[in-house]
Amino acid sequence: MYQDLSTPLRTILTPGPVEVDPRVLRVMSTPIVGQFDPAFTKVMNEVMEMLRQLFQTKNQWAFPVDGTSRSGIEAMLCSVIHPGDVVLVPVYGRFGNLLIEICERYGATVKVIEKEWGRVFEPAEIIEAMNEVNPDIVALVHAETSTGRMQSLKEVGEACRKQEILFIVDAVASIGGADVKVDEWCIDGLIAGTQKCLSVPSGLAPLTYNKRVEERIAKRKKVERGIATEEELKATNQQFIRSNYFDLSMLQDYWGPRRLNHHTEATSMLYALREGLRLVLEEGLEERFKRHAYHEKALMIGLDEMGLERFGDDTVKLPTVTCIKVPEGVEADEVRHTLLEMFGIEIASSFGPLHGKIWRIGTMGYSCRRENILAVLGALEGVLVYYGVSINKGRALEAAIRYYAEEQT
Amino acid sequence: MYQDLSTPLRTILTPGPVEVDPRVLRVMSTPIVGQFDPAFTKVMNEVMEMLRQLFQTKNQWAFPVDGTSRSGIEAMLCSVIHPGDVVLVPVYGRFGNLLIEICERYGATVKVIEKEWGRVFEPAEIIEAMNEVNPDIVALVHAETSTGRMQSLKEVGEACRKQEILFIVDAVASIGGADVKVDEWCIDGLIAGTQKCLSVPSGLAPLTYNKRVEERIAKRKKVERGIATEEELKATNQQFIRSNYFDLSMLQDYWGPRRLNHHTEATSMLYALREGLRLVLEEGLEERFKRHAYHEKALMIGLDEMGLERFGDDTVKLPTVTCIKVPEGVEADEVRHTLLEMFGIEIASSFGPLHGKIWRIGTMGYSCRRENILAVLGALEGVLVYYGVSINKGRALEAAIRYYAEEQT
Repeated sequence: MYQDLSTPLRTILTPGPVEVDPRVLRVMSTPIVGQFDPAFTKVMNEVMEMLRQLFQTKNQWAFPVDGTSRSGIEAMLCSVIHPGDVVLVPVYGRFGNLLIEICERYGATVKVIEKEWGRVFEPAEIIEAMNEVNPDIVALVHAETSTGRMQSLKEVGEACRKQEILFIVDAVASIGGADVKVDEWCIDGLIAGTQKCLSVPSGLAPLTYNKRVEERIAKRKKVERGIATEEELKATNQQFIRSNYFDLSMLQDYWGPRRLNHHTEATSMLYALREGLRLVLEEGLEERFKRHAYHEKALMIGLDEMGLERFGDDTVKLPTVTCIKVPEGVEADEVRHTLLEMFGIEIASSFGPLHGKIWRIGTMGYSCRRENILAVLGALEGVLVYYGVSINKGRALEAAIRYYAEEQT
Repeated sequence: MYQDLSTPLRTILTPGPVEVDPRVLRVMSTPIVGQFDPAFTKVMNEVMEMLRQLFQTKNQWAFPVDGTSRSGIEAMLCSVIHPGDVVLVPVYGRFGNLLIEICERYGATVKVIEKEWGRVFEPAEIIEAMNEVNPDIVALVHAETSTGRMQSLKEVGEACRKQEILFIVDAVASIGGADVKVDEWCIDGLIAGTQKCLSVPSGLAPLTYNKRVEERIAKRKKVERGIATEEELKATNQQFIRSNYFDLSMLQDYWGPRRLNHHTEATSMLYALREGLRLVLEEGLEERFKRHAYHEKALMIGLDEMGLERFGDDTVKLPTVTCIKVPEGVEADEVRHTLLEMFGIEIASSFGPLHGKIWRIGTMGYSCRRENILAVLGALEGVLVYYGVSINKGRALEAAIRYYAEEQT
């Protein structure tokens, strides 16, 4: 009745999910082992080690939550937020709004400062707001894919540390593509994603947190009946974390030496993450960031030559996402559909006020390579000309090829 | 630094995760497409159709939550429970305790009736408790892997429907291995698992719910800022669901025609689920249940011949899990470790009061086949003899082979 799965091959140049390295795809076909098999707990431990390197941290806790990126954000926030806590959320795009949303769900008093989409905050602006609202937590997006901007974090982190405010960062879109220094930037809790610069399919949300977070959640520990010790049952604090699935104190006991059964780890996804991390570390973090910047430049040169206008403040551009304004006289989504239908190339639209106004081209992880940059430049030119948009013809590819011929990574 | 992933091949006879059909493993290597690619939304729609068939329901809503099985349980419970709601949880094993745990986290008043582990409730006992505590919701485990028992549901479902009580069922361990009739049994919301009788890796939690549940959650709808319409923002009910990730009203808008962005669907896992469901439907539900019962019988014949004693009430045995008492004079976990180390065969222990007292042999999905049954019988005999346990030697395999030679599925 149903046929064997048959999907087209795509060139994916969105800000996620992006193309998966064939080596990562391949390990997903590995026959599974049981969740407490020593062969599997070894894989779990290796993934934790590799995540620490990726996050540039000495934190003990670095593991994935079994869910998509926002599951990691929710796990982190619901584990640290006590109802009534004041959380300061500086918003400069859609994913800042998501942080507000999750904080509200868990009963925080959310204080918001906003920046026009396409720009980011001066650290001093955030620090000033901290002084005003005296938050328990600052929650901040590092890389805002909705606008293609990247917020600098270090000064904010240092100010938080000084004032004993918890600093929680959503680095879903930057991790593995741009520098993220958890310890040096004084980040207490950080959430990453798999389907962007790590080039692993969506489905896990790696995160890390330090002792400050650990102590906070230890006070709220609740172990479920049936696997708790008598003492744990008696000691349960009524301020327990409101989610079982996202309770980091329980996840910690599953990933730690106690191996207390919580969920059944998503075996094949963990294999994929292990391979994805292995490839990141094999390439080297610095090399990988350089590669992203290198291809970003080729793309920008080509788009500039074509005569398209970039969106947003260029000085704080996210290196893994390039936003361009949709030229007059053409329907944004129609261009995207034609790119997909005719060329098998996917680029993205954006959300809310920017929908239909900009296109976003992601150059993340395995998708971020020469043939893809050249493919999208050529295809976009073809489609724009087809729709009668006035652009400079025949110059984008020439400029990009010259760049690639002359410049090394 | 890190080597290519290299894991041993195992014969997995636990109650999950179990061996994955090679055809399912294979589709996991399929290159991915974007989440709003028409090629992908088609896969999403197909999965919904197939899930309806698996669940034997006409419900519109049948889709996976992106997380392990308990994420589906939490999504269902947190979406239907208003703080203060009375939830009746009849407990006959560890996973009943998990239902209590999740209900408590979301502020329900939980009423519990308990049954000695190894037995199940008479429907009349549950209905009597319903009359006493007048619950808003009854939450019940269909197949309790911790004890290997299966609870009959139909009469309870009919009583709930009559009294306008919501009936929520955890069928994680039975779905695809034993009959589950969502509509006929008056189940309002049901959660399944992938890593058991569907033989798909852990990481998705398929669920279904009917109009009664849908109406309940529609009243609590909250759409996040940044993607909500003005009207939706104004209309937000303060009784909103306490989790963003698990808010079924948002998941519904992602799986439904509105395709409102929520998470990024776990592409490769959905490919795996599609293939797993395709194989289940190709085999046929009735045939599949028969196959599980057929091999269960071979296993029981062999264990009986060996002289091992089964645990629990045989009349309500879960066909996909066989529990045996650990004989005197042998350390339960040592036997398991030797089985794993020497034979590469994994069987399970149990939880809490049953840990070390029983072994659990799962015969689920792809793991449930002749060579595996024979392998575990032969290996278990060898290991028990090695540890000096007095059993009937040389009879288990003979009896099982004879059964297989004489009886057809």
